[in-house]
Amino acid sequence: MQAKRSGCPIAAALDVVGDRWTLLLVRDIGLFGKHRNKDFQEGAEGIPSNILADRLRRLVADGLVSRRRYQEHPPRYEYHLTEAGAALLPIVRAMALWACEHVAGVHMPPLPAD
Amino acid sequence: MQAKRSGCPIAAALDVVGDRWTLLLVRDIGLFGKHRNKDFQEGAEGIPSNILADRLRRLVADGLVSRRRYQEHPPRYEYHLTEAGAALLPIVRAMALWACEHVAGVHMPPLPAD
Repeated sequence: MQAKRSGCPIAAALDVVGDRWTLLLVRDIGLFGKHRNKDFQEGAEGIPSNILADRLRRLVADGLVSRRRYQEHPPRYEYHLTEAGAALLPIVRAMALWACEHVAGVHMPPLPAD
Repeated sequence: MQAKRSGCPIAAALDVVGDRWTLLLVRDIGLFGKHRNKDFQEGAEGIPSNILADRLRRLVADGLVSRRRYQEHPPRYEYHLTEAGAALLPIVRAMALWACEHVAGVHMPPLPAD
């Protein structure tokens, strides 16, 4: 994590998740059951591969995501939410509801079955 | 607002508030009762003036903040949350609680009296 900007916990949260992509990966893992690089790359938003690699690295470093090797040669990893990462899911859902109510043209799509 | 990345309402929310500064201005206005440029500039995070001007402009364009002129020469403005902006405050509070629980060294400071 980068240096904290202030003692404010809101700023601290935004230092971790305050960008356009990090919470989409939390969504992919926690709501859509995606766990592997190629799954993230297939998302509708088209995350650039360099941003994907950077955000996964930061999510692991910040303790929001754990990484498990599932293949040795070449090494490949699966990503799962930690307790801290899963604790963001209510915030992610609240953002979705907020956008449905307050951003023009946005509607709740059907979620994949749990 | 920039073009939507996908039909996902989470992505739509992050297209509006997915950066390190926008929700800090929502905090300043909605929780700290700050309304003027100089008040925002005095915040502990030291927002750069060009970022401040850009984020205020986008908050107004996206309908989260309304702007009122309070002085004519030179023109100066006050900023207040709209209903859509105020609807973000529960999310901002949830982020603060999340950081207090899951980010090392973060604690809830006393809020200014309402």
